[in-house]
Amino acid sequence: MSDLRVIVVSSGAAAERTVTTGTKAWELFADDDSVIAARVDGDLRDLAYELADGDRVEPVANDSDDGRAILRHSTAHVMAQAVQELFAEAKLGIGPPVTDGFYYDFDVAEPFHPDDVERIETRMRKIIKEGQRFSRRVVTEDEARAELADEPYKLELIGLKGAGGDGAEVEVGGSELTIYDNLRRDGSLAWKDLCRGPHVPTTKRIPAFKLMRTAAAYWRGDENNQQLQRIYGTAWESKDALAEHLDRLEEAVKRDHRRLGAELDLFSFPEEIGPGLVLFHPKGGIVRKTMEDYSRRRHEEAGYEFVFTPHVTKQQLFETSGHLEWYADGMYPPMELDEGQRYYPKPMNCPMHILIFRSRGRSYRELPLRLFEFGGVYRYEKSGVVHGLTRARGFTQDDAHIFCSPDQLADELASLLDFVVGLLRDFGLTDFEPELALRDDTDKYVGEDWEWDEAESALRSALEKTGLPYVEAPGEAVFYAPKIDIHVRDAIGRRWQISTLQVDLQEPQRFGIEYQASDGTRQRPYMIHRALFGSIERFFGILVEHYAGAFPPWLAPVQVVAIPVAERHVTHLDRIAAKLRAAGVRVEIDDSDERMQKKIRTAQTQKVPYMLIAGDKDVEAGAVSFRYRNGEQDNGVVVDDAVQRIVEAIERRVQV
Amino acid sequence: MSDLRVIVVSSGAAAERTVTTGTKAWELFADDDSVIAARVDGDLRDLAYELADGDRVEPVANDSDDGRAILRHSTAHVMAQAVQELFAEAKLGIGPPVTDGFYYDFDVAEPFHPDDVERIETRMRKIIKEGQRFSRRVVTEDEARAELADEPYKLELIGLKGAGGDGAEVEVGGSELTIYDNLRRDGSLAWKDLCRGPHVPTTKRIPAFKLMRTAAAYWRGDENNQQLQRIYGTAWESKDALAEHLDRLEEAVKRDHRRLGAELDLFSFPEEIGPGLVLFHPKGGIVRKTMEDYSRRRHEEAGYEFVFTPHVTKQQLFETSGHLEWYADGMYPPMELDEGQRYYPKPMNCPMHILIFRSRGRSYRELPLRLFEFGGVYRYEKSGVVHGLTRARGFTQDDAHIFCSPDQLADELASLLDFVVGLLRDFGLTDFEPELALRDDTDKYVGEDWEWDEAESALRSALEKTGLPYVEAPGEAVFYAPKIDIHVRDAIGRRWQISTLQVDLQEPQRFGIEYQASDGTRQRPYMIHRALFGSIERFFGILVEHYAGAFPPWLAPVQVVAIPVAERHVTHLDRIAAKLRAAGVRVEIDDSDERMQKKIRTAQTQKVPYMLIAGDKDVEAGAVSFRYRNGEQDNGVVVDDAVQRIVEAIERRVQV
Repeated sequence: MSDLRVIVVSSGAAAERTVTTGTKAWELFADDDSVIAARVDGDLRDLAYELADGDRVEPVANDSDDGRAILRHSTAHVMAQAVQELFAEAKLGIGPPVTDGFYYDFDVAEPFHPDDVERIETRMRKIIKEGQRFSRRVVTEDEARAELADEPYKLELIGLKGAGGDGAEVEVGGSELTIYDNLRRDGSLAWKDLCRGPHVPTTKRIPAFKLMRTAAAYWRGDENNQQLQRIYGTAWESKDALAEHLDRLEEAVKRDHRRLGAELDLFSFPEEIGPGLVLFHPKGGIVRKTMEDYSRRRHEEAGYEFVFTPHVTKQQLFETSGHLEWYADGMYPPMELDEGQRYYPKPMNCPMHILIFRSRGRSYRELPLRLFEFGGVYRYEKSGVVHGLTRARGFTQDDAHIFCSPDQLADELASLLDFVVGLLRDFGLTDFEPELALRDDTDKYVGEDWEWDEAESALRSALEKTGLPYVEAPGEAVFYAPKIDIHVRDAIGRRWQISTLQVDLQEPQRFGIEYQASDGTRQRPYMIHRALFGSIERFFGILVEHYAGAFPPWLAPVQVVAIPVAERHVTHLDRIAAKLRAAGVRVEIDDSDERMQKKIRTAQTQKVPYMLIAGDKDVEAGAVSFRYRNGEQDNGVVVDDAVQRIVEAIERRVQV
Repeated sequence: MSDLRVIVVSSGAAAERTVTTGTKAWELFADDDSVIAARVDGDLRDLAYELADGDRVEPVANDSDDGRAILRHSTAHVMAQAVQELFAEAKLGIGPPVTDGFYYDFDVAEPFHPDDVERIETRMRKIIKEGQRFSRRVVTEDEARAELADEPYKLELIGLKGAGGDGAEVEVGGSELTIYDNLRRDGSLAWKDLCRGPHVPTTKRIPAFKLMRTAAAYWRGDENNQQLQRIYGTAWESKDALAEHLDRLEEAVKRDHRRLGAELDLFSFPEEIGPGLVLFHPKGGIVRKTMEDYSRRRHEEAGYEFVFTPHVTKQQLFETSGHLEWYADGMYPPMELDEGQRYYPKPMNCPMHILIFRSRGRSYRELPLRLFEFGGVYRYEKSGVVHGLTRARGFTQDDAHIFCSPDQLADELASLLDFVVGLLRDFGLTDFEPELALRDDTDKYVGEDWEWDEAESALRSALEKTGLPYVEAPGEAVFYAPKIDIHVRDAIGRRWQISTLQVDLQEPQRFGIEYQASDGTRQRPYMIHRALFGSIERFFGILVEHYAGAFPPWLAPVQVVAIPVAERHVTHLDRIAAKLRAAGVRVEIDDSDERMQKKIRTAQTQKVPYMLIAGDKDVEAGAVSFRYRNGEQDNGVVVDDAVQRIVEAIERRVQV
């Protein structure tokens, strides 16, 4: 036995170690139970992987993104084994990990009943307790066919270029065909699956899981194929992590903007109008107007120019821009006007802003030229994927296009990032995760390499300037441009993509726009596409969920409800309400016939930030009881103080 | 000869007169040269009309609307006579009066040359000088055919129910077929035309005319027919009135918003987007934004609720509303989504606002509920009639729908009228002509008589309350509602229809909307449709023409241009500009290489309200020269005074 030298990377630090030939990866991390796989020279591997000389090895912990995907993938195997033990006739579809969980599809005679799911869970617990070992085995196609002769769907997958047998989307090293055997402690075969792996070493390493729901699904997503039965589950690195996840789900249901939108009378999606097309009711309308007013003011201060463009246009525009070539699937179908001329609702505002730039000669003195618009756009989403405000068919972008010279690009991007992040903070979002979306080596991008290099490096340097930690995402660029996507985490930790900044030389070229540089030459400007809220409607929906409907005072549709203890206290409140209204505060007096306690509950249910309650003592003292929606209450607050407290909270855009 | 008793109405006063049988109308008005026709029992007649017992007779003056139409119609005859005298082969088409003038169509071999038009004018002057008499003669169809055997187009008109031989749209009494002979002083026939009349007594009564332009026109407006040559002319009651008209036309050309829109870089209509669809450039955009900001503020103060609705919708909505039944011609064609479901761009916002009302139960306590939106709408205008911003295909209504109980209707309408008129005044329009558009006795209206009575009388009483003089226009109601249209006169006296208020019970019925009244019963609300600017785009275009592009300071895209006498004075102006910007003023510093005089001219051409000019003396004294766009200039104005003067002028929305 000779020695091997490997590099072990842990917490970012690399150390060289000498091990004997035949050493498995797990031996490097034997003291750490949370390590369930290894990344070797960039590829994910089982812990049973045998090290080779020069390998660079990183542990994969079960609470990392990679680790959780592997854990969930292994749990999917356990579920499939349980199903086949309980339902002998069940045939296997695919069973990949997905966001926050996994699924497996089965061809069974009947949909699974909730009782079946419980039995499957129980059987899974038994398998996990047994500590069955996941064992990898390379096979030829013929061997695989022979072994899986009873599994028609697996047979279909064998030989499909690049397809993992269970559809797992985790990374694999190489293109070998592999089978994973689940082996009992005595070495006997409990179950097996065509699978690229990797997996946890044994089923004991699945600390916590839960089956979530069942659904029907067509084989390979094609509705002409056989319908299979899918079971969704989730798995986590600990029972606590699972419990937290389930809490988050419950919280997300409570915060669902579609539900709160109805409860708080913010908006609706009437059947007569069609999916993905929203009506903002007065209470949602005033929130949206407040958002837009604030945005307009900030854009004005930041030197943006306001433009307005129509929602429909002749096809000629989208031929020039390339949208009909590259983006037709996302567009509404055309209307025929003027004898055969096709008109489209616009999916994007950029070509119209370019036409404004091009409407006359431009000088370098005018750059950067920042055109801003609340631009209504229409995109064809299949009715099945439309989801409330967050995936709609018609929405309004707070859209800017900034035309600048190459030497202005980096500074403009940096100040733009500051502007974007500052404005998001004003809306109570503070946890940013910028992603630098770059091209990869596929051919789905238009333009020259040097253009992409320049644009990508300008974006990268802008990110460096802000000091925000960011990740790079090769392959996530749009076809015409690299971009920065600002993701934010909301109050319950969910990640939303919100703002986007793209650097584009392609559209300027397609439209042939130019400016006269200081040396008199004609130059092509860069064009930065920038949406801040992204879609106002979507951002509105995210804010509803972030705040669980309890908008901060400056945004709340009703900011104050005045509640009289008895009818004789209404006059006192009328005077206070008049003062508040004069200061621009949205106040209502609840002079209905309900009892005071009921009125307080109603205001709390409606998530009104402030209640001003008045009884005899208050009237006498020129005061009110000042109540917050969380139930805290200050009694005997002098009227002018109460008014000032509210006005200041609104002006300062406090969060509570 | 026996006596007849007739009633003569003059300046609104009626007096009975006794005249002998055979008296002609002209004998009643012989002392007044300006009277050129008579209205007898409501019908327009020649002055040669022989009076009958009991006739109620009004003089028609040549400067009244009716009088001018008759004058122009007679001038059209004179033109046709001149043409046929000069071009023997010319065949007659039709020759009616139109707004501000008349035309006549001719079948001739060649289009008329400018020289031809001059010759025709000269010949017309000769005919007018000769004082030929217009003589009316009733004929049978056979007689007409025989007399007009050489006029194929007239032959085609004979027997066409209700068609006047020359297409004149002036009123006629009865359905007799008549020919007008033009008779020389010696009684000989100079020319004749199939015509319903009436006409001026002799050609001498045509005080002033001018031929304006020529155009091609298809016979009866059908492009499958023969192409004819049209000559347009105008005629007026005096040479002064003609001169004023020509001045107005010249002024209108200068003020044409399409021309100024380009000159002042306000907006454009790029070919790529299609007719009637506008792009607002930054300078137009800031004006529009200022208009919208102001409108939003005023609507907020007036208790409107802000809503937002999409621009496209399923056809179901317009089936329920009735638009597809009654208004389909004005709509864009549909798009097919989701396998055969038709979607339309909305031509109106009302059905969506109704859905918001209907989204939950409503109580009388919520009424009047005023929903407001800047709602983008799309209407299919033929590309030939599209005209800049004033007749567009896509535009934005400042649209409100007010839901109220029957007993609130009159007060709501009255305060609404005040609101509308007040806001229009703020935009510098002061000359209002409200028109009460009522139903007539045709069957083109939906709904019950009592509903119409109630709605019409509520509108009438609201108008009475405002004290504005108004006219009633039977037959001008829309199919579902009577309305008040606010017409305004602009700076050069042209009349524009701007705001509209409609009272509607039909749509509330079609959508079955209700509210709970104070007695617990369910009641149907009235719905008031109200657009104030009407279309923001159109109103913008009207304002451009009204102000000839010289917007008042609060609306001007650039409010101040600072002009240094030499480069060393820029710093001084920078400081002043900073003060102005801090006060929200839109200021630019012209630090280009041009000479000062050139910069002043540029600012004047761009119609910038204020120029602040600074030289050595100004820098020394902490002052500026304050120059208005009309050329007036105050020298040595202390900086803070200059800033205050500008800020106050903007805040007070002064007109200059």
